[in-house]
Amino acid sequence: MSGSVYGKLFRVSTWGESHGPGIGVVIDGCPAGLKLNSGDIQKFLDRRKPGQSRYTTQRKESDEVEILSGVMEGLTTGAPISLLIRNSNQRSGDYDALADLYRPGHADYTYSVKYGVRDHRGGGRSSGRETIGRVAAGAVAAKLLAELGIQVTAFAKAIGPVTLHEDEYDFSQIEKNPFRMPDSVHIRQVEDYLQEVSAARDSVGGIIECRADGCPAGLGDPVFDKLDAELAKAVMSIGAVKGVEIGDGFSCASATGFTDNDMFRSGENGKVIKATNHAGGILGGISDGSCIILRAAVKPTPSIAREQNTVTKDGEETTISIKGRHDPIIVPRAVVVVESMVSIVLADALLNGASARVDYLRKIWER
Amino acid sequence: MSGSVYGKLFRVSTWGESHGPGIGVVIDGCPAGLKLNSGDIQKFLDRRKPGQSRYTTQRKESDEVEILSGVMEGLTTGAPISLLIRNSNQRSGDYDALADLYRPGHADYTYSVKYGVRDHRGGGRSSGRETIGRVAAGAVAAKLLAELGIQVTAFAKAIGPVTLHEDEYDFSQIEKNPFRMPDSVHIRQVEDYLQEVSAARDSVGGIIECRADGCPAGLGDPVFDKLDAELAKAVMSIGAVKGVEIGDGFSCASATGFTDNDMFRSGENGKVIKATNHAGGILGGISDGSCIILRAAVKPTPSIAREQNTVTKDGEETTISIKGRHDPIIVPRAVVVVESMVSIVLADALLNGASARVDYLRKIWER
Amino acid sequence: MSGSVYGKLFRVSTWGESHGPGIGVVIDGCPAGLKLNSGDIQKFLDRRKPGQSRYTTQRKESDEVEILSGVMEGLTTGAPISLLIRNSNQRSGDYDALADLYRPGHADYTYSVKYGVRDHRGGGRSSGRETIGRVAAGAVAAKLLAELGIQVTAFAKAIGPVTLHEDEYDFSQIEKNPFRMPDSVHIRQVEDYLQEVSAARDSVGGIIECRADGCPAGLGDPVFDKLDAELAKAVMSIGAVKGVEIGDGFSCASATGFTDNDMFRSGENGKVIKATNHAGGILGGISDGSCIILRAAVKPTPSIAREQNTVTKDGEETTISIKGRHDPIIVPRAVVVVESMVSIVLADALLNGASARVDYLRKIWER
Amino acid sequence: MSGSVYGKLFRVSTWGESHGPGIGVVIDGCPAGLKLNSGDIQKFLDRRKPGQSRYTTQRKESDEVEILSGVMEGLTTGAPISLLIRNSNQRSGDYDALADLYRPGHADYTYSVKYGVRDHRGGGRSSGRETIGRVAAGAVAAKLLAELGIQVTAFAKAIGPVTLHEDEYDFSQIEKNPFRMPDSVHIRQVEDYLQEVSAARDSVGGIIECRADGCPAGLGDPVFDKLDAELAKAVMSIGAVKGVEIGDGFSCASATGFTDNDMFRSGENGKVIKATNHAGGILGGISDGSCIILRAAVKPTPSIAREQNTVTKDGEETTISIKGRHDPIIVPRAVVVVESMVSIVLADALLNGASARVDYLRKIWER
Repeated sequence: MSGSVYGKLFRVSTWGESHGPGIGVVIDGCPAGLKLNSGDIQKFLDRRKPGQSRYTTQRKESDEVEILSGVMEGLTTGAPISLLIRNSNQRSGDYDALADLYRPGHADYTYSVKYGVRDHRGGGRSSGRETIGRVAAGAVAAKLLAELGIQVTAFAKAIGPVTLHEDEYDFSQIEKNPFRMPDSVHIRQVEDYLQEVSAARDSVGGIIECRADGCPAGLGDPVFDKLDAELAKAVMSIGAVKGVEIGDGFSCASATGFTDNDMFRSGENGKVIKATNHAGGILGGISDGSCIILRAAVKPTPSIAREQNTVTKDGEETTISIKGRHDPIIVPRAVVVVESMVSIVLADALLNGASARVDYLRKIWER
Repeated sequence: MSGSVYGKLFRVSTWGESHGPGIGVVIDGCPAGLKLNSGDIQKFLDRRKPGQSRYTTQRKESDEVEILSGVMEGLTTGAPISLLIRNSNQRSGDYDALADLYRPGHADYTYSVKYGVRDHRGGGRSSGRETIGRVAAGAVAAKLLAELGIQVTAFAKAIGPVTLHEDEYDFSQIEKNPFRMPDSVHIRQVEDYLQEVSAARDSVGGIIECRADGCPAGLGDPVFDKLDAELAKAVMSIGAVKGVEIGDGFSCASATGFTDNDMFRSGENGKVIKATNHAGGILGGISDGSCIILRAAVKPTPSIAREQNTVTKDGEETTISIKGRHDPIIVPRAVVVVESMVSIVLADALLNGASARVDYLRKIWER
Repeated sequence: MSGSVYGKLFRVSTWGESHGPGIGVVIDGCPAGLKLNSGDIQKFLDRRKPGQSRYTTQRKESDEVEILSGVMEGLTTGAPISLLIRNSNQRSGDYDALADLYRPGHADYTYSVKYGVRDHRGGGRSSGRETIGRVAAGAVAAKLLAELGIQVTAFAKAIGPVTLHEDEYDFSQIEKNPFRMPDSVHIRQVEDYLQEVSAARDSVGGIIECRADGCPAGLGDPVFDKLDAELAKAVMSIGAVKGVEIGDGFSCASATGFTDNDMFRSGENGKVIKATNHAGGILGGISDGSCIILRAAVKPTPSIAREQNTVTKDGEETTISIKGRHDPIIVPRAVVVVESMVSIVLADALLNGASARVDYLRKIWER
Repeated sequence: MSGSVYGKLFRVSTWGESHGPGIGVVIDGCPAGLKLNSGDIQKFLDRRKPGQSRYTTQRKESDEVEILSGVMEGLTTGAPISLLIRNSNQRSGDYDALADLYRPGHADYTYSVKYGVRDHRGGGRSSGRETIGRVAAGAVAAKLLAELGIQVTAFAKAIGPVTLHEDEYDFSQIEKNPFRMPDSVHIRQVEDYLQEVSAARDSVGGIIECRADGCPAGLGDPVFDKLDAELAKAVMSIGAVKGVEIGDGFSCASATGFTDNDMFRSGENGKVIKATNHAGGILGGISDGSCIILRAAVKPTPSIAREQNTVTKDGEETTISIKGRHDPIIVPRAVVVVESMVSIVLADALLNGASARVDYLRKIWER
C-alpha cells in the first residue's frame, strides 16, 4: 500500500481500521521542545467525534487518545510521537450483510480489485474512522503552528444548496451550531433541508473553507512541491473530498489578469502587502504573508438507506439499502479533518523552509 | 528548495531557468525495455511550444530535445533518462526594467523573501518555461502508458466565459483549433472574446479537462497517496492552476447521495461496471476501471500590459506595465502540461501498484 | 528527528522509548495476501528478549506483541500493520542517578546537544529496546521472504578474541548455545573469556555474520541505492554496530583482481553461476543469485560497572560506575536484530524490483 | 531503477553512461546564497580525472563541467543546480568484443538479469565514470560545508599490503604523490608492489580513510538515519567499496567496554570534549563534535588483462582477457569520490538538523 505516510520532515504515518482494535498515528520529525499533552490532542478528537448532534452518526465512540512515546514531562523530545485510540463501539455485525456486496460510492470494489482481500467491516481502512489518525496528528501540528503564531480555522461554507457569502461570515458562530457554519442566520434553512433529505433516506454534501492566519511569507517550495500543491494533495486525500481550490479558485477561470492579480502596496514599516487576496495567500507556490484560503468540495455521505442497484462480489446484480448509523451530512465533522490536514502541511513547510538559505544554516549551526 | 522532484518510483527531477543555458529533466525509475526516441518527446514539446498561433507568445523557441542518457538502440535501459532542451531565444534585456519591481500575480516577491536572492530574468525558475521539463517527462510517461493501453487526453473546456458542455465535446477537433477546444462551434465566440480582452491589454483564464481512458482498476493507494490526491497535487503544482476537481467535483457539494453515487452493474464476462461516472473513475483513492476525469482552473496570464500598481524591492509604491511577449491566454499551451502531469502520476501509480500483492511478487520473482 | 522511517515501499516506522508505555512499529506497504499471525512475530521477539541466558541482562520483559491493524483472518490486507509491545518492567529509578551525567559510549551527550531535552530513563530512544520495533518488522519481512523462498540467517562469528573460521561453521548449533555461534567447540573458550571480563566489571564485542539464501538475481538498484549500500545503512543503523562488510569485505583491500573476481560458469539448465563468492552475492549493487553474505562489527556494551571518567551536564568532571542490569555481551541478542534489518532490506528490494521492466508491468496490469 | 537519487533535503540525482553523450547531476535543495562557480567544481573533477599518473587509466577525458542552472551572478538561487560533463573520448569499439560476455567482478550479468537489456559499452551506468556526477555534487556540498567551517579530507590508508599507521600520517603529502597517501616514506614500496602486480596483468585494492573536521555536535538522526548509517550507505554505494567502518570499526569487536568507550572531559569554556575518539566522532548516530573518521575497503580493479574464465550471455563457457585502458589501482581516484559522498551526507545532515528544535524554528521564522 505504502500510501499512509505523509510529509517530508514532519512525517505522519497513520494506521488502523474501523473495526479492528484501534486507530493510531506515528509522527516522526516533530521538533523537540514543544509543549504537548494528551489534552491538546483530545480537544481535536472531541470535535471530530460522532454523536455531537443529531446530524451525525449516533455511534458512541469515546475516542480517547493515549500518548505512547515522544513526550517527556510535557515536552516533545524529538523522538517519534505515537498516539493510540482504541476502538470501543464496533458493531461488526452491522456489516455482515455487506461482506458480499459492493456499496455504491464506497471503496469496496476498488479495494477488492487492488488487494484481492478486503476488510469489509465498516470499510476497514477506507472508513471515515481512518481520519482519527489525521486529526490526532493535526492537533500536534496545530500546537506547533500556534507556537509560531499561526492559526488555522476551517468551517462549513455550504451545506447542500445553502451557501454563505464571505461578507456573511461570523467566525464566532462556528462552534455554536451543529454544522460549524460561521453564521447564525442560515442555520434554520440548513436544518429544514437536512430534514427533507433525511426523510428521503438520502444524504447531502457541502463545501468546507479553511483559512490560515499568521503564516510568514516564504513557506512552500517551487515547482512540484508548491504549497498549494501540497495543500491540494492533503485535502483531496480526505475520503469524501472531490475538489480543492485556492483563493478565488475556479472563479479565476472567467476573470481577467487585471481583476485577478493582487496589486502590491507598501505597508507599515516598509513591509510589502497586497491590496487584495485573490491568490489566497500563495504566489508561485510560496506563501506571501497574507491569509491562506482554500475550499474543499465534500460529496454527500455515500451510505444511504434509500435502495440502490449494485452487484455482489460474484458479479450478480442486486439491490442494497444501507442500514447502520451513518452521518446524513459529513461536512461538520470533516471540518476538523480539513483543519488537521492543512496544519500538517504547514508544519511540514515550516520545517522544510528552515534550510532554504545559507544564512539560516549559519543561525543554527554557527557556535 | 527541494521541490523539483516528483514521484515515488517514476521519479522526475526538473531543473532550469527561463533565461539560463537550458531546461531539462532527469527521470529515474522508468522501467527498462520501453521503446523511446527523441521524436516521441519532441512531439509533446512541439505542442507546448510558443508561437503556434497568434494567441500565444511570439517568442520563437525551437525547444529541441536531446536524450543524454538512459536509452540505447531505441530502448530504455532502466538507467536515468536525462533530457536537455537548450534555451535559444532569451531576451533578458526585456526583463532589466523588472529587476527591481515585484510583478503582481507573479512569484517575484515570494522568491525574494524565501531565498534572499532572485533570478529576475523571465521569472527564473517560476517561469512558464519550467513546464518544458514536465512535458518532456510527460512524453516518456505517456509512452509507457500507451504500452499498457492507457491514453490521456486534455483539452480546453472553458476559455473565459465560454464553456463547453460535455454533450458538445467533439474530441476530433482538439488539435484543429488554436485553443485546443473539443469543438468547432464556439471558436468564433472565443476569438471575439480574446480580441476584446487583448484590446484592453488584459488576459484571460479558463478550465482544462483531462481524461484517462483504459486505466485498469487498482491504481492508487489509500489514505494520503490516493490517486485523486496525487493528481490534485500534480496538477495544482502547475504555475497558473488555482483549483482541481475530480469527476463531478464542486457540483457534488449540492448533490445528494442517491444522485452522486454511481451504481454498480454487471458488465460483459461478469465484469463489474458502473452505470454512471460521477466519481470520475476513482473510488476511495483507487481507480475503478472507468474513465478518469479531472478539471483544472487556470488563472489569467498575470503578465499584462495594462498598468497596475506595485512596489519596488525597496518597498516604494510605483506602477508597472509589462512589455514583452506574453500569452494573452495560457490555457491552450497548458493543456499539454496537464496531460503530462496526469501521465506522470499514472505512470508512478502503475509502478507502485506492481508490488501491492504477494501473488504479484510471485509472478515477478518466482523462477 | 525524522530518522525512524526506513524503506521506500516496505516502509517501517518505529517508535517508543525504553521507559515509556511501550515500543512499536508501523509497516506501511506490506503486500496483501501474506499469511501472518502474532505467533510469527512473537517467535522473533522471543529470540531478542532479555533473560535468555546468564550472559544477557536479567531484566524480565515479556515483550508480547499485539497486532493492531492490517491483518484480517490471518491474512495481510495491504493496510498498514501496526504492532504494539507494552513495556512491563521499567525500573526508571535505576536511572535517576544518571539524569545529570553523560555515560561514556552512549548517546546521552549527543541527544542533549541535538534536542535540548533528553529522556534519560534507560537511554530513551537510544536504548537497546528500540530494536524491538525492528525485530517485529523484521519478522513480517522474513515471513514475506519465506513465501518467495528466501531464508535469512545471522549468527555470532566472533565474540571478543574468539573467532570462528568459515570451515568450522555448524549452522545446526546456532540456537543451541547462548552465544548463537554456529559451533559447539569454542563455546567453553567464550565462556571463560566472558567470565574473566565480567570479573573485571567490563564488557566485550564481537562480529555477527548474516547470510541470505535463495535470493533471486536482480535485487537492488544501481548507483546510490545499491543492495549492499542499503544493507550497510540498515545494519550500521543498529546501535552498537561500527563496521559492515560484504563478501570478502576488508580483506579485498589486499587481494588482487585475479583472486578477488568470481569467475562465471555454466550451471544446470544453462544457468549462469559463479565458481566462488568473494563478492558476497552482490555485483554492481544487484544480487547475483548466490548467497548474500555480510558481517557487522559490534562494539562492547558501553554500560559497564567499572569506574570511568565523565562530566555532568553542567560540564563538571566526575566519575561514573553504571549499575543496573546490562548485557556483558550484546552480540547474541543483536544477531536477531541484524537478521531483521537484512530481511527488511530484502523485502523492500523485492517490492522495488517488481516495477523494473516493462514486461513485469505487463504481467501485473494486462488483463 | 529509481536508485540514482540520494538525500532527503540536499537531493542529488545523477545520470549518464560511460559511452553516452555525457554524465551529469542535478542537485535539488542546495540552500540559496552560496558562492559557487564552475571552478569550484572543476577542481574536484580534475582530482578524479584519469591520466593523472601512470597508475591510472591513460584515457584522456577533459571532463569539463558546465553549470546549466541554479546559479546567478556567482550565487546559488535555491533552484536546482544542473551540472553537465560531456563525454569526449569514448572508444566504444574497445567494448564490442565484450558485448556478449559477462566480465567477472563486473555488473554485466546482474544488469542483464535485472533489466533484460544492457548497455555494454564501458559498463554503461555501472562504469566508474558514473562517479563524475557524485564528485560534481560533492564539490557543491564541500563548498557549503566550508562556509560552515567543516573540512572533509580523504586519502589512501593502504594500497595492497602496504598500510600506513595513524602515527605515520603526514597530511601535507596527500596531493604530492600519485597514490594520495599521507606519507612520503612508503611510496617506493607501493610503486614496487604495483610494478609487480602490473607485470602479472593483475590489479590491487586498498583502504581509503576519510576525516571530517569542524563538524558541530548534533548532526544525524536517531534510529535508521543515524549519521554513521547514512555514511555507510553513501560510501558503500561507490562501485568498488566492499566494507565501511567508523572510528575503531572492526577492531571494536575484540576491545572491551572500558578500552572502547571515550571518556568525557571538561574542555575550554565548560565545553564537553572526549579524551579519546574510538567512536569516530559519532555517538548514537549523532555527531559528537570530534573528528568524524571512517574507512572504506576498496576491491582491486576487476578489469584485468590476465585471462579469466567466464560465460557468454548464452551461457557458453569461455575465457576473457580485458584489453583497454584500465586503472591497475582504483584507490587514488576513488579518494575524491569518498570525500564527495561524505560531503554530500554531511550537507544533507546540516539541512535536516535545521528543523530539529522548536527554538531553531523560532530563529528562522519569527519576524
